[in-house]
Amino acid sequence: MISKEKEYFEIINKIYLKVIKEENLGETANYIPELSKIDGEKFGVSLLFTDQLQFGFGDCEEKFSIQSISKVLLLALVYRDIGEKIWERVDVEPSGTSFNSLLQLETDKGIPRNPFINSGALVVCDILIDICDDPKAYFLDFIKKVSGNYSIQYSDKIAKSEFSTAYRNAALTNFIKSLGNIHNSPDDVLDLYVYICSIEMSCMELSKTFSFLANKGKNLFDDYQVLNISQTKRINAIMQTCGFYDESGEFAFRVGLPGKSGVGGGIVAIMPKYYIVSLWSPKLNLKGNSYRGMKFLEEFTTATEDSIF
Amino acid sequence: MISKEKEYFEIINKIYLKVIKEENLGETANYIPELSKIDGEKFGVSLLFTDQLQFGFGDCEEKFSIQSISKVLLLALVYRDIGEKIWERVDVEPSGTSFNSLLQLETDKGIPRNPFINSGALVVCDILIDICDDPKAYFLDFIKKVSGNYSIQYSDKIAKSEFSTAYRNAALTNFIKSLGNIHNSPDDVLDLYVYICSIEMSCMELSKTFSFLANKGKNLFDDYQVLNISQTKRINAIMQTCGFYDESGEFAFRVGLPGKSGVGGGIVAIMPKYYIVSLWSPKLNLKGNSYRGMKFLEEFTTATEDSIF
Amino acid sequence: MISKEKEYFEIINKIYLKVIKEENLGETANYIPELSKIDGEKFGVSLLFTDQLQFGFGDCEEKFSIQSISKVLLLALVYRDIGEKIWERVDVEPSGTSFNSLLQLETDKGIPRNPFINSGALVVCDILIDICDDPKAYFLDFIKKVSGNYSIQYSDKIAKSEFSTAYRNAALTNFIKSLGNIHNSPDDVLDLYVYICSIEMSCMELSKTFSFLANKGKNLFDDYQVLNISQTKRINAIMQTCGFYDESGEFAFRVGLPGKSGVGGGIVAIMPKYYIVSLWSPKLNLKGNSYRGMKFLEEFTTATEDSIF
Amino acid sequence: MISKEKEYFEIINKIYLKVIKEENLGETANYIPELSKIDGEKFGVSLLFTDQLQFGFGDCEEKFSIQSISKVLLLALVYRDIGEKIWERVDVEPSGTSFNSLLQLETDKGIPRNPFINSGALVVCDILIDICDDPKAYFLDFIKKVSGNYSIQYSDKIAKSEFSTAYRNAALTNFIKSLGNIHNSPDDVLDLYVYICSIEMSCMELSKTFSFLANKGKNLFDDYQVLNISQTKRINAIMQTCGFYDESGEFAFRVGLPGKSGVGGGIVAIMPKYYIVSLWSPKLNLKGNSYRGMKFLEEFTTATEDSIF
Repeated sequence: MISKEKEYFEIINKIYLKVIKEENLGETANYIPELSKIDGEKFGVSLLFTDQLQFGFGDCEEKFSIQSISKVLLLALVYRDIGEKIWERVDVEPSGTSFNSLLQLETDKGIPRNPFINSGALVVCDILIDICDDPKAYFLDFIKKVSGNYSIQYSDKIAKSEFSTAYRNAALTNFIKSLGNIHNSPDDVLDLYVYICSIEMSCMELSKTFSFLANKGKNLFDDYQVLNISQTKRINAIMQTCGFYDESGEFAFRVGLPGKSGVGGGIVAIMPKYYIVSLWSPKLNLKGNSYRGMKFLEEFTTATEDSIF
Repeated sequence: MISKEKEYFEIINKIYLKVIKEENLGETANYIPELSKIDGEKFGVSLLFTDQLQFGFGDCEEKFSIQSISKVLLLALVYRDIGEKIWERVDVEPSGTSFNSLLQLETDKGIPRNPFINSGALVVCDILIDICDDPKAYFLDFIKKVSGNYSIQYSDKIAKSEFSTAYRNAALTNFIKSLGNIHNSPDDVLDLYVYICSIEMSCMELSKTFSFLANKGKNLFDDYQVLNISQTKRINAIMQTCGFYDESGEFAFRVGLPGKSGVGGGIVAIMPKYYIVSLWSPKLNLKGNSYRGMKFLEEFTTATEDSIF
Repeated sequence: MISKEKEYFEIINKIYLKVIKEENLGETANYIPELSKIDGEKFGVSLLFTDQLQFGFGDCEEKFSIQSISKVLLLALVYRDIGEKIWERVDVEPSGTSFNSLLQLETDKGIPRNPFINSGALVVCDILIDICDDPKAYFLDFIKKVSGNYSIQYSDKIAKSEFSTAYRNAALTNFIKSLGNIHNSPDDVLDLYVYICSIEMSCMELSKTFSFLANKGKNLFDDYQVLNISQTKRINAIMQTCGFYDESGEFAFRVGLPGKSGVGGGIVAIMPKYYIVSLWSPKLNLKGNSYRGMKFLEEFTTATEDSIF
Repeated sequence: MISKEKEYFEIINKIYLKVIKEENLGETANYIPELSKIDGEKFGVSLLFTDQLQFGFGDCEEKFSIQSISKVLLLALVYRDIGEKIWERVDVEPSGTSFNSLLQLETDKGIPRNPFINSGALVVCDILIDICDDPKAYFLDFIKKVSGNYSIQYSDKIAKSEFSTAYRNAALTNFIKSLGNIHNSPDDVLDLYVYICSIEMSCMELSKTFSFLANKGKNLFDDYQVLNISQTKRINAIMQTCGFYDESGEFAFRVGLPGKSGVGGGIVAIMPKYYIVSLWSPKLNLKGNSYRGMKFLEEFTTATEDSIF
């Protein structure tokens, strides 16, 4: 462990202990019945350097539902397979507010603003159905390969729990179908979508899985080139502008790293070339991002003075 | 000139010669009468390294109307003067589409989405009026200091030309006033705004003026600390997420650098710690950004493999 | 036949012959596959006076798909059964443009603007499912009773044809479900909706079926009081303000009678106390209303000087 | 006084006494400083039959600011002068919600949805400026002629009070100007608009002024034909669909007569061929219509069973 890494260990340790003592505001996601049962006090952090050193704090070994974080992996897989053609079906612009997203679909003829809002991920799911025989197995194999971890699984329970109440996503899927940008049956697309969001990982696993985005597209632990350099940068750019719903600008502003959050309370952020940091704390702020996760990352990049900017 | 800089010189030279031979699409801004008269074939580029070496190509010495690029300098001045309080009056989120911006003002009680859309810059102008006696002189002094160039001036002709047809900005100003987030007279705010946008600089001057954003907040050519490190990163972050209207995501995706464009056809982009690149080519694409400027920068960061991501 | 009625016969005859000679613009509804096959040159008119005299012209005996006209009968049935409580679930305001309707649902917490836009009729279907055991049979019995015609039927073919492509209505149903204003399964609601819209009648039958709305709520041909006087006026009022999508104002302005159109090309209009006029011509204008139907009615009320205003 | 008229007298008297005893909810308009000072307990009613009999109750002789009610007279004047060409500049559709009105202007290229929303009246003011030399004098002469009352005046105080805070209307005017549907200077249009809204009348005068709309376009008290029959019906139709902001459907539904309200607390409603009823009570409900006025009219048409439907 080099001295810079020691310093990071101490910084994280200090911030972790500080944040865990402070008030833990927000609510666990309540629109997915299974998620609302999670203990809101869970708190895990993991930092993985591109030299393969990895730290973990708190509940960093406990699996949680990564939810929308999975959209980055979904995008990576389909981008890898079909290349730039993917952008004929989904754009790369921030969406403004969730409030606008339905309006924009109408104006934009069914092309979602970016692959990290629900409408965009649904369209990417639709593409995935078209390019392989068994999309659930194909996606899971990809995750296993990228994470180097063959124990990773979907959660049937979470997927079914979400599907049972996914009326808003069903509305989106049918609406995009009516506008011509979904080719398969809305139910099939929605089913794939909830499974992809149901992937479970721990912070330690999440950092490993996302390591290719800090490492010019190549897995840290084997020679596998997931994406080329240009594709890697582009996914990081989309995370920067669109990774935190309508708090994306705020995250760029306060934290200064590309990243992605999920309603399970997870966040992953990338310092290109240097490290991947993953967090989990289930209580969400009003914008749907982990309350403690946002706080931790702001203090972390303030202390380290890290930022891509 | 070190070898890396030589390499950049050759790359720019090659791309400059390539782009200037290709079709020059788009239109010069036609809603400001004076701007529509500019020769659409003008094309200048300037690269300034943080070691103070500077290159220039084509019409890099010719002054042009920097228009919205000025909003970054306006923000820098007011942010320097009043600090984080500025964010009570304007947010830091991308706006989605221009189409949404009026709607959002209503929903958001007059708080513009960010300081680089017109509504946001109008609010920052309103603050500037409140914090000094002669805002036009105060802003010009700031520009002169930051650029190290005491010849920089407003263009009365451009300002008056814009004021005479600024009905949409007058609508915005009055609308925000009705929502309580403009304190001075709408006419005064609008008058200051068109003057600030009328600043004229060459690409060479623009690179120098923006050098503090690549240099941790400090002017390259003297010891003046314009902003602190945190403020500097934050302005770069806002440029990244909001600097190119509803093409901001596309710019992050294709070019990968924070930057800002103006309807005069100028663009400035920052590679933090390394360089500032400025361009001018007056024909605009459908999103209002310089057609050749966007093309040049995409080819430039592809060739150099530069990106913050 | 009294002399005033003779005069009306001659007026209609003359306008019918005039309109049928003029260009027949527009398109038959193409989003429901079965409807797009209908002969666009069909043209029927029927006038029924409250003294029971009835005229018919052209294809007035041929059954067609009454589509959205059915929403008035659906509203009448549920209004009769649950009274003013219905307005807790659906409003009585015009919706502006179809473009706004999704936005408004979000702002208005799932309460559709009125019962004649699709979202409103879907909510009324949802209520109907809750208040009876077999809603399809119950609605059909109501239509048979009101029309005095026991041969009226749903069209399985049209209903299934519509269901197979009803993605937009599926989107609406799921969206309202997510907002809490649909209680049953979205598929059940949508299935009932497409059946209700698939009812087939001729112009002659349509006039008879709607006679209670010109007759203080009482069927013309038996003693059955469908609605009370106040309810009857209220349904006429809603037809006036909301009966023709975003051409409702235009219809009030040009024709001056309450009425309702359907994408099958049918229109029914009411002159309270005096008559019911029904038309059928399948080619639709850009707002989705029968091109010849609108033209005929404007000329008709111009010639007769009839208007409620 | 015929027996039917006696009956109406008694009905009004009874409802007047009932309503004045009940709670008087709502607020006087507070965005126009002068209007907020009015005594909220004022309450006047006047009924004028087309046989020229007129009743008055309460504060029926006291002048108040008729505000938006004036838009009907403005429309009548310009419609009279330029005929159907007026509809090239303004539409006749309900606007849905005020929330939509800015959005719709953008989509509809500056054509306001109807002449009774602010944007529509501003466009009609713009036309008025084009068709006469002194629009304020010309409009006032028209009002004097139509009302048969040469004492009617603008209120300088109200007009200036409104102008001083008319930021939202200034926003609208400039926005429409930017979209090309206002030809004169925004300030001139806005100045005319606030004067037209500042007209003061009592309920007694208001009923007389609007008598032509119940009398086939002809003044009750002289032979002057203000509008032809078709134009008269059309203005009534627009009042029915658009006269009460986003409570227009509710008014058609509950009251069943065409009418127009103003933020001064006035309402005028028309029973074509029979009577004109005017009310004044300054406290407004949440939609901006007189709280007691709405209540009175609903009880009145319930008691009389009057309705155009």
